[in-house]
Amino acid sequence: MQPHGIMRPGHVQLRVLDLDEAVHHYRDIVGLEETARDKRGRVYFKAWDEFDHHSVVLREAEEAGMDHVAFKVEDDACLDRIERSVKEFGLQVDHVAASEQLHTGRRVGFVCPTGHRIEFFAEKAQVGNGLPTQNPDVWPDGLRGMAPVRLDHVLLYGDEIERNLELFTKVLGFRLTEQLLAKDGKTHLATFLSISNKPHDIAFIHCPQKARLHHVSFYLDSWHEIGRAADIISKKNVSLDMGPTRHGLTRGATIYFFDPSGNRNEVFSGLYLSYPDRPMITWTEDEIGKAIFYYERRLNDRFMSVTT
Amino acid sequence: MQPHGIMRPGHVQLRVLDLDEAVHHYRDIVGLEETARDKRGRVYFKAWDEFDHHSVVLREAEEAGMDHVAFKVEDDACLDRIERSVKEFGLQVDHVAASEQLHTGRRVGFVCPTGHRIEFFAEKAQVGNGLPTQNPDVWPDGLRGMAPVRLDHVLLYGDEIERNLELFTKVLGFRLTEQLLAKDGKTHLATFLSISNKPHDIAFIHCPQKARLHHVSFYLDSWHEIGRAADIISKKNVSLDMGPTRHGLTRGATIYFFDPSGNRNEVFSGLYLSYPDRPMITWTEDEIGKAIFYYERRLNDRFMSVTT
Amino acid sequence: MQPHGIMRPGHVQLRVLDLDEAVHHYRDIVGLEETARDKRGRVYFKAWDEFDHHSVVLREAEEAGMDHVAFKVEDDACLDRIERSVKEFGLQVDHVAASEQLHTGRRVGFVCPTGHRIEFFAEKAQVGNGLPTQNPDVWPDGLRGMAPVRLDHVLLYGDEIERNLELFTKVLGFRLTEQLLAKDGKTHLATFLSISNKPHDIAFIHCPQKARLHHVSFYLDSWHEIGRAADIISKKNVSLDMGPTRHGLTRGATIYFFDPSGNRNEVFSGLYLSYPDRPMITWTEDEIGKAIFYYERRLNDRFMSVTT
Amino acid sequence: MQPHGIMRPGHVQLRVLDLDEAVHHYRDIVGLEETARDKRGRVYFKAWDEFDHHSVVLREAEEAGMDHVAFKVEDDACLDRIERSVKEFGLQVDHVAASEQLHTGRRVGFVCPTGHRIEFFAEKAQVGNGLPTQNPDVWPDGLRGMAPVRLDHVLLYGDEIERNLELFTKVLGFRLTEQLLAKDGKTHLATFLSISNKPHDIAFIHCPQKARLHHVSFYLDSWHEIGRAADIISKKNVSLDMGPTRHGLTRGATIYFFDPSGNRNEVFSGLYLSYPDRPMITWTEDEIGKAIFYYERRLNDRFMSVTT
Repeated sequence: MQPHGIMRPGHVQLRVLDLDEAVHHYRDIVGLEETARDKRGRVYFKAWDEFDHHSVVLREAEEAGMDHVAFKVEDDACLDRIERSVKEFGLQVDHVAASEQLHTGRRVGFVCPTGHRIEFFAEKAQVGNGLPTQNPDVWPDGLRGMAPVRLDHVLLYGDEIERNLELFTKVLGFRLTEQLLAKDGKTHLATFLSISNKPHDIAFIHCPQKARLHHVSFYLDSWHEIGRAADIISKKNVSLDMGPTRHGLTRGATIYFFDPSGNRNEVFSGLYLSYPDRPMITWTEDEIGKAIFYYERRLNDRFMSVTT
Repeated sequence: MQPHGIMRPGHVQLRVLDLDEAVHHYRDIVGLEETARDKRGRVYFKAWDEFDHHSVVLREAEEAGMDHVAFKVEDDACLDRIERSVKEFGLQVDHVAASEQLHTGRRVGFVCPTGHRIEFFAEKAQVGNGLPTQNPDVWPDGLRGMAPVRLDHVLLYGDEIERNLELFTKVLGFRLTEQLLAKDGKTHLATFLSISNKPHDIAFIHCPQKARLHHVSFYLDSWHEIGRAADIISKKNVSLDMGPTRHGLTRGATIYFFDPSGNRNEVFSGLYLSYPDRPMITWTEDEIGKAIFYYERRLNDRFMSVTT
Repeated sequence: MQPHGIMRPGHVQLRVLDLDEAVHHYRDIVGLEETARDKRGRVYFKAWDEFDHHSVVLREAEEAGMDHVAFKVEDDACLDRIERSVKEFGLQVDHVAASEQLHTGRRVGFVCPTGHRIEFFAEKAQVGNGLPTQNPDVWPDGLRGMAPVRLDHVLLYGDEIERNLELFTKVLGFRLTEQLLAKDGKTHLATFLSISNKPHDIAFIHCPQKARLHHVSFYLDSWHEIGRAADIISKKNVSLDMGPTRHGLTRGATIYFFDPSGNRNEVFSGLYLSYPDRPMITWTEDEIGKAIFYYERRLNDRFMSVTT
Repeated sequence: MQPHGIMRPGHVQLRVLDLDEAVHHYRDIVGLEETARDKRGRVYFKAWDEFDHHSVVLREAEEAGMDHVAFKVEDDACLDRIERSVKEFGLQVDHVAASEQLHTGRRVGFVCPTGHRIEFFAEKAQVGNGLPTQNPDVWPDGLRGMAPVRLDHVLLYGDEIERNLELFTKVLGFRLTEQLLAKDGKTHLATFLSISNKPHDIAFIHCPQKARLHHVSFYLDSWHEIGRAADIISKKNVSLDMGPTRHGLTRGATIYFFDPSGNRNEVFSGLYLSYPDRPMITWTEDEIGKAIFYYERRLNDRFMSVTT
């Protein structure tokens, strides 16, 4: 398989019930930078150490959830290769015109077997990370809230997880870094997929419904900052879901909370480097608690059932 | 009131159901140093940065719990002053001969209104902290487990909390640094008491029973080490109770877990300096969740009901 | 000796060459709160977790340095006892009227053998720490800069260090927690003195001159925050002296830098609890490097010679 | 250019003057695992979270320094492609037979323009990271010393840095993530090169001599652990070079020290993700101090001149 030049999750477009409340949450509490608003009323954000114009787009809607997640690829030719490969796999591929999102090039998209819309784009205007590219300081002034460095990954719930795994690994070139298997030893309950040296860039958990969002995750630099994020969650009366704790899966330190529309957010930290020759980790269903919450070693119902 | 020269909680004597399991827990997982065993089969431990011979004594028994907590005072004359004051308050005071615990001087003791045995002693052999007193390094080699620096405090459950408060503040000279009040605005649900610059050296929570132990707490230097303690708890299959989280009360970062006999342990970190002129903090019953678990903002039944 | 009820270093009054530059430094970079300015042009500051009206007072003058350090005592009667004791020791004691500093009661003062003015006061208006005393959060909004929790100690250079030690230990009741001895094994090069459970509340280093200020120290909660303070020092072009590093003496993590007038500041973190029965630590002159800078194990000339 | 499948620096072979002293240093102080010794007397080590058999090989010799650094590639075909490309570039390529190093496949090597031997290999036996690949804990028991997770990069000094840059970027496919330019605005003083999402996998600094080693770097997970490494350096009388401090270049937190033979080691932490579209950072010669040591903002002679 020829590489598709996929670099990273470039942005997520989220549906929120009340735009003002959501803007307050993502700007003042999570601490993203608002970079623009468009004619359709969408609000654009980026994390401070991202260079592209945006990594989160909020759209007011009657139901919360994720419209799509879009991966950035190295150049426009990658988009054509991805389109061909995905069509060959049997999915319909469509196109979103350049500038449908501000400062963003054309996007190629499709609905993957779990029901989620996945897109790819090669161009987005760079607005920088608040520091010069010559002799920069280590962080800019004016950081607010939790101040994550980047959008890190999304975790999605959906039904056809086996075929989805085939798409992501065999067609798109992601690596399965960790998996959670059912008691039968072969059915996937969860798949963690990387297109980089990160432990995951996207993950899927099996559920009977299609197209559910479990969480959008932002990266913090240390366990210390996870604790500070927890302070902020309590200070600001944000709805806490779970944490601070640690995952067995990916080893990440984490805390989960909800935006005012009920979309789950994560801030997390800590990662091993994922290389193609790193052995895949398998978790068994009887150890699902340890896999998900390494400290508590048991799941809570909300974590498994509440999605948007 | 003339000061009684009370310095700190000098040791706790705990009852455990299986001595070998308990020794493994306190030595290898918590990471205390075993310093001696006596003819009666008791095992003595100290935290690494304590100089005295022991701060934890384990005694095998048919029921878990705390035999007594003993405070160290500055000199023998303090013991007489304490005895006089406590008798005046109306409690019976008795004496434990020197060497009843190894390397420990005579102890003066009584049962306080919540039913707990409280003792005081002035002498205990110093065995050092593993470092020379001339040109020491910052920590010794050979630390194991969580490796707390010291016994920090005990939290006890009992019934006559108001009279107990009077004893500790008016007779023994502790300061009430934080309190949790019932809805009536005056009945104490919890009292946090300091005899030093720490936010608490001992604390009491109201419950209908007498003489219950909620937890014994050991001090760690940072939130980072709380996370590492959480790793160890999971790695070693220790029974986790709660955390890592943070208290509103005292602001301490914390994790709770059980020894094999069901005695609750805490490792915690982070403290403000308590001075006589620092305003007392009051928590109200409707915010009890925030007071106890600042992140979760709600209690769990186990935390409130399981004691030994 | 009857205790004098001395609680802590309550404030330092510093001389600065340019008030505006100094205010910028202490308010925006160190991150103290400005609480008042008085008719004489002095500017008052407090660290966020202090309750009293101020702990730092800046006075514009032609020469940098420290006017005085003032300890807070438990009540007014303590001031009389201190006056008597110090006079008996042979020093002249004078009085500063209440309100000479804003919101501050009468002060009793004298020049100690090393030439520094030491004062004591019992009253200062409390302005709080930005949090309610009922159901408070763990830190207030609006923290800036390094945001230390408190003034911690001052380290002073002067000549008659032996007689000074006698004054502080035998007359004022401080404990000598750590000492640095000259090659003769008895002459003090440095004395670290505590009146609390902190490793030091004031320290003196021997030098041929009288009344020199080496540094004013503010407390941060962790090594993580020492690193963040170092980031700020570089970002804001503050003059760095030394660090981030660690002391052998007191084990504290530290970074030193200068205010625009050349007064040295420290932010530091990490401390053992000092009790009366904790063995005193002795450092020998041949290990002075390790004592002062545990990592580098050697001194730099600037650190030893530049004072104000 | 077709990608060469280069994954990471797979190992360095170092020359040491006294093998026993070196083994003590890398095993007990740095905390690598010794995995084997071969007939030629070489000792093999790996960091705990590496899966391959070794990442450091020590060879006793009369002069310290680095024999070679070897990158692991995805498969054997990559080696042929690299050989062709490098020959086309005009360098001689030679072959090292499989098993010349234990458990290692054939290596393709050459001397790059700065005089260093660079090798590539596709096969090395995996010995694991001490944890199972099914339901693993987050770290294994028995970690010692600084316990870095991996070999991270090497920094090399040499002369023909411009042609070297051409080789690494145009022929081998590394990205220039950060560069330090001389006053003329075009001559490279330093080049930081990444073949992954790390800020650098190898770096070169210009000097008049060929084939010098500046340092071998190992990765730690946090600033907290950098501080702990500093404690260990002082406790164990390791020769400290510089730090704890932070780099402007790469933003990494760092501490430098020497092995007993004078080879410089680094442990460092903290990294941004390097993607192909992340703007290259340029440092100018007048800010070289800030580039190298962000806190001190000046270089020391030793750091610039001492190499092996």
